[in-house]
Amino acid sequence: MKIPLNLKQNEINYEVFIDENENIKINGKCAIITNAKVAGLHLQTLLKRLSADEIYIISVPDGEEYKNLNTLETILEQLFVSRLDRSSTLLAFGGGVITDMTGFAASIYKRGIKFISVPTTLLAQVDASVGGKTGINSKFGKNLIGSFYQPNRVYCDSQWLSTLPKREMAAGIAEAIKMAVCFDEEFFAWCESADLRLKENLAHLVAKCVQIKARVVAADERESGIRAVLNYGHTFAHVIERESGYGTLLHGEAVAVGMVMANELAFRLGLISQSEKERIKALLKRHNLPVSYSVKDVLSFYDEFFMDKKSEGRNIKFILPHGIGDAVIRSDISEELVLSVLGEFK
Amino acid sequence: MKIPLNLKQNEINYEVFIDENENIKINGKCAIITNAKVAGLHLQTLLKRLSADEIYIISVPDGEEYKNLNTLETILEQLFVSRLDRSSTLLAFGGGVITDMTGFAASIYKRGIKFISVPTTLLAQVDASVGGKTGINSKFGKNLIGSFYQPNRVYCDSQWLSTLPKREMAAGIAEAIKMAVCFDEEFFAWCESADLRLKENLAHLVAKCVQIKARVVAADERESGIRAVLNYGHTFAHVIERESGYGTLLHGEAVAVGMVMANELAFRLGLISQSEKERIKALLKRHNLPVSYSVKDVLSFYDEFFMDKKSEGRNIKFILPHGIGDAVIRSDISEELVLSVLGEFK
Repeated sequence: MKIPLNLKQNEINYEVFIDENENIKINGKCAIITNAKVAGLHLQTLLKRLSADEIYIISVPDGEEYKNLNTLETILEQLFVSRLDRSSTLLAFGGGVITDMTGFAASIYKRGIKFISVPTTLLAQVDASVGGKTGINSKFGKNLIGSFYQPNRVYCDSQWLSTLPKREMAAGIAEAIKMAVCFDEEFFAWCESADLRLKENLAHLVAKCVQIKARVVAADERESGIRAVLNYGHTFAHVIERESGYGTLLHGEAVAVGMVMANELAFRLGLISQSEKERIKALLKRHNLPVSYSVKDVLSFYDEFFMDKKSEGRNIKFILPHGIGDAVIRSDISEELVLSVLGEFK
Repeated sequence: MKIPLNLKQNEINYEVFIDENENIKINGKCAIITNAKVAGLHLQTLLKRLSADEIYIISVPDGEEYKNLNTLETILEQLFVSRLDRSSTLLAFGGGVITDMTGFAASIYKRGIKFISVPTTLLAQVDASVGGKTGINSKFGKNLIGSFYQPNRVYCDSQWLSTLPKREMAAGIAEAIKMAVCFDEEFFAWCESADLRLKENLAHLVAKCVQIKARVVAADERESGIRAVLNYGHTFAHVIERESGYGTLLHGEAVAVGMVMANELAFRLGLISQSEKERIKALLKRHNLPVSYSVKDVLSFYDEFFMDKKSEGRNIKFILPHGIGDAVIRSDISEELVLSVLGEFK
């Protein structure tokens, strides 16, 4: 299946290939950015499908805690040593950490070279690899340094998912649930009934998410409007990840908790019903995703919201579900109400 | 005088204000990136013209040797601490090092915030501040890490130039001569006769260069064609700067030597006459710019060309004058001929 992304703003078009397993032909040099684990499990399979004038393999440490300026510098140095030029390609082969960092490296190496993404985790397939957000973390927060840079092609193949640990699989499902809650009630109902251990269901889930995301990104590449809805659960998740230390919770797990928190806020505002709140929580729990969190100090948690990229001035932007299948962006929520909701998570 | 830049590709339009000395009004927070020297001399004057909701001043070490990932990180950290958000503005106040680095920081901070450039050196006014090239150096070469990111406004004011050391003034004139040689014979002749100690002549020089550059950049923002001509002298200059260590020669000085080298190559290929070669050299010398360089080892000098952003595979791209007022891009020049020309600079 091929899903086209058409971004009018920059006249950029590219395709996301889902389970096509076709050969990847690259003109010029290609550097694969991956990590030790993915490379050990799957690099041989990838290389069989790949052709390029010269291939370089750059392996970087795995995990959010290495998604930083230091690792980026290591990648760039190896690109210089390998003498990649402006006609060369970077290929990301890994999860969201790898695809985000590789996209960022591609956007700033010699002011921009080609970028192909081969996400190997469910989370990266349903979310991170599509849409052109690239970046690294800083000690002040997640993805605070980065760029908008679209890949030239994305390949989402379920073959890599067979070795994915259960926790990481669930983390990907959390992001899929996020999209269903915000944009597609029918898809949400499908998620409630589908057995995601079946390969064809997993492929359907990925395809559905990529379609939703492609539509949203095409409408709003730079996140000046509707695209922000994709951050449902993330405003809370970013603080949780920072507070608990990157790597303690998986990103998708933090998003699951973040959605539960956002839902509580939405419920207090009358945007969702008790039963809708419970349906979402039940679906998350079914996949063994965390649905509770212990806020240490509500005031400092609240203060941390302002480190988020999306916060402007004194307004925190909350993405809240409006029933299941729709969402709203609200910047008018009182500090008191937010603190009160945070107080429930102790 | 206001010179418009219209970039069709991204539908970006902005203006370069030359000697308008008008007030700079900024909505939201503004961080000024500058260095100790410029700040000490001129910050007070700038601040009188500037209004913003909050102003932060970030001073970084001066010089090419500090135009690196390390300094960039320092800038970003201070932006985080100052809690600049996506509606904030970075204002570059300094020479090319500051404008390039600030533009780069603006392009990657929270995936891009507003950027205003107030270049304080002649070189930055005639070249670096217009056109959207941003970047930092790596140990592998100059400006090898960066992005294309257009400023929202540029202010070129001659008032800052009064305190510019003679050597730096000459370095700016070198870039102006570069543009005249490549694009405008009449302007070249004007440069030969004009007294650049006069303020009105200096303003004319800046305006002329910005006009030329605006035309070139509008035609080719991403340097896939004609914009590469602006690199006349730079292929050699980058190697010279790297070999002699950043900071030994000013960038404009290295470009002056680079032009002399490129001219020798152009002369051997019959692209310029002996007298044209001499006219360019004489004009450079009149401004006390270096016109000779001692190549230590021709083979390693040649090898260094391949670190350049513009080199692709085994083809080195040379920008060569074609008479005075026109230039050509050539990728077909034999290693033998280049080595022979380099051999003359011992």
